[in-house]
Amino acid sequence: MISNKGIQPSTILDAASRISPHIHRTPVLTSKTINSFFNTQLFLKCENFQKVGAFKARGATNAVLSLDQVQQSCGVATHSSGNHAQALSWAASLVNAKAYIVMPENSSKVKVAAVKDYGGIIRFCVPTLEARETTLQEILYQTGSTEIHPYNNEQVIAGQATAALELIDEVKDLDMILAPAGGGGLLSGTSLAVHYFLPQAKVIGAEPDQANDAYLSFTNKTFIPSLNPQTIADGLLTSLGSITYPIILTHVHQIVTVSEESIVKSMRYLWERMKIIVEPSSAVPFAAIMESKVDIAGKRVGIIVSGGNVDLENLPWMKNG
Amino acid sequence: MISNKGIQPSTILDAASRISPHIHRTPVLTSKTINSFFNTQLFLKCENFQKVGAFKARGATNAVLSLDQVQQSCGVATHSSGNHAQALSWAASLVNAKAYIVMPENSSKVKVAAVKDYGGIIRFCVPTLEARETTLQEILYQTGSTEIHPYNNEQVIAGQATAALELIDEVKDLDMILAPAGGGGLLSGTSLAVHYFLPQAKVIGAEPDQANDAYLSFTNKTFIPSLNPQTIADGLLTSLGSITYPIILTHVHQIVTVSEESIVKSMRYLWERMKIIVEPSSAVPFAAIMESKVDIAGKRVGIIVSGGNVDLENLPWMKNG
Repeated sequence: MISNKGIQPSTILDAASRISPHIHRTPVLTSKTINSFFNTQLFLKCENFQKVGAFKARGATNAVLSLDQVQQSCGVATHSSGNHAQALSWAASLVNAKAYIVMPENSSKVKVAAVKDYGGIIRFCVPTLEARETTLQEILYQTGSTEIHPYNNEQVIAGQATAALELIDEVKDLDMILAPAGGGGLLSGTSLAVHYFLPQAKVIGAEPDQANDAYLSFTNKTFIPSLNPQTIADGLLTSLGSITYPIILTHVHQIVTVSEESIVKSMRYLWERMKIIVEPSSAVPFAAIMESKVDIAGKRVGIIVSGGNVDLENLPWMKNG
Repeated sequence: MISNKGIQPSTILDAASRISPHIHRTPVLTSKTINSFFNTQLFLKCENFQKVGAFKARGATNAVLSLDQVQQSCGVATHSSGNHAQALSWAASLVNAKAYIVMPENSSKVKVAAVKDYGGIIRFCVPTLEARETTLQEILYQTGSTEIHPYNNEQVIAGQATAALELIDEVKDLDMILAPAGGGGLLSGTSLAVHYFLPQAKVIGAEPDQANDAYLSFTNKTFIPSLNPQTIADGLLTSLGSITYPIILTHVHQIVTVSEESIVKSMRYLWERMKIIVEPSSAVPFAAIMESKVDIAGKRVGIIVSGGNVDLENLPWMKNG
């Protein structure tokens, strides 16, 4: 297998053992009403109930716990303004390690506060990719800390794969699993878990029309990054990485895209019908079902509901209302 | 036992068997973060995930299924603008019975639409208690339908008791169970379930300061109805009934009250931390914990999270913001 990037079945199983004392085995929810309406059987793996409110806790924890004691003592670092920043701060705190987080100075107060709450040490920079990279390199040089990339890291991918592993363990005979595609950590991990542990099932990635780099890269079989993507699904702005892309190209069966309108509609539908809080990025796979982009009729369909971190003061249907 | 109003252990167990093919066995959620913060072990019985989004589906279903075929063929009726109206409409549809719902003509569009969605036949009346009663009596006379009172009905109470029954079955050695107090259907049912099946545990009712009839009636040992109560917890505006009050007086151990501010704060806290949608009434028991009104230190504490039906266009922190 040339495109597993060193992630073997044992890598994923080891990750599961390593992180299980710290993370939640999240519940799988179903809705007879939704199943009946869409003539399918949906199983929602609720990573919105995960530590720090997103699957990112899995990969960050696996990465931090995979470091040796000397590495941990020097801390970890990343640039992120999203769930990975919170997840890494939290995961580092499990072993009393420092987490240096580079954030653009225009990050929302909510996000800055969340990282601080989890004990992250924030270094602000101007909001350009170059400044973020430069600032991160400075921190790595100054502190000797280890960079934990949000998705382009094998231990992170192996950690994210454990969500699908749990779903496969709990719900038998799934025909397919849907996951959102951002940097591809969750999608590549999911595809490897299915490849190794439920090879008869399909893996489908979903992403916004307006941030469709994974779709384009997958369809054209050549890496095409997003240029200035604009989507409400702010967890899916990033393009695939050098590690996640080949895994996805090899082990994912289909990638579909959805409109902004569908994302908001799906998010609200899940809030109203399932009574769970999901963030826009998490509603993207369900939006693919709403848009009939995936053939789910009569099938057993798993969905990784990736997170539930939203600003309750700013809900998308309010802005549009 | 003089105050069980004919509700025996078998009444509750029969209700559980009768309704279980139709309702959800709702999940019990926990949060290590919240437990750690409050130095307790909380178990949230998530009736917000119940059919029609509230525990009311239990009592309504038990009441409808307890009628004989002739009664069912004539339909059921109630006056309610809340979750009971939706629950009765839905429960009646299970046996193809008609559900006549008397609603005040100033009911919100959201609530009217919800009742219609579940197949309820709405009869509007002017918004006075007298008009509601008169209109209901007219319908009962015209149709031969059976009134299913939202709470002052033994089969309804036995149905509501099954939420605590499931919680007791799933979570061992609870020290206490908290439930909100409105008309008292849920609280009286919970208290009987605990009395019969977990007699060593305590039952604590929680209600708004601004709708504190249960607290006053319980403390003074004389029935004191609410006069024009005003609270955001719109499921708890009603006063106790002639059946629910004696049960509560006998089997509930404590009733506490909470401020409007705490209710909103608790609701938002549960949304943010647990990623579940709970309505204001459902946040009232948790508000009692936030206000330190209940001694929960080191205890195993069950909470019946009663429902999750909110108008997502009008969230209380928006109004105050």
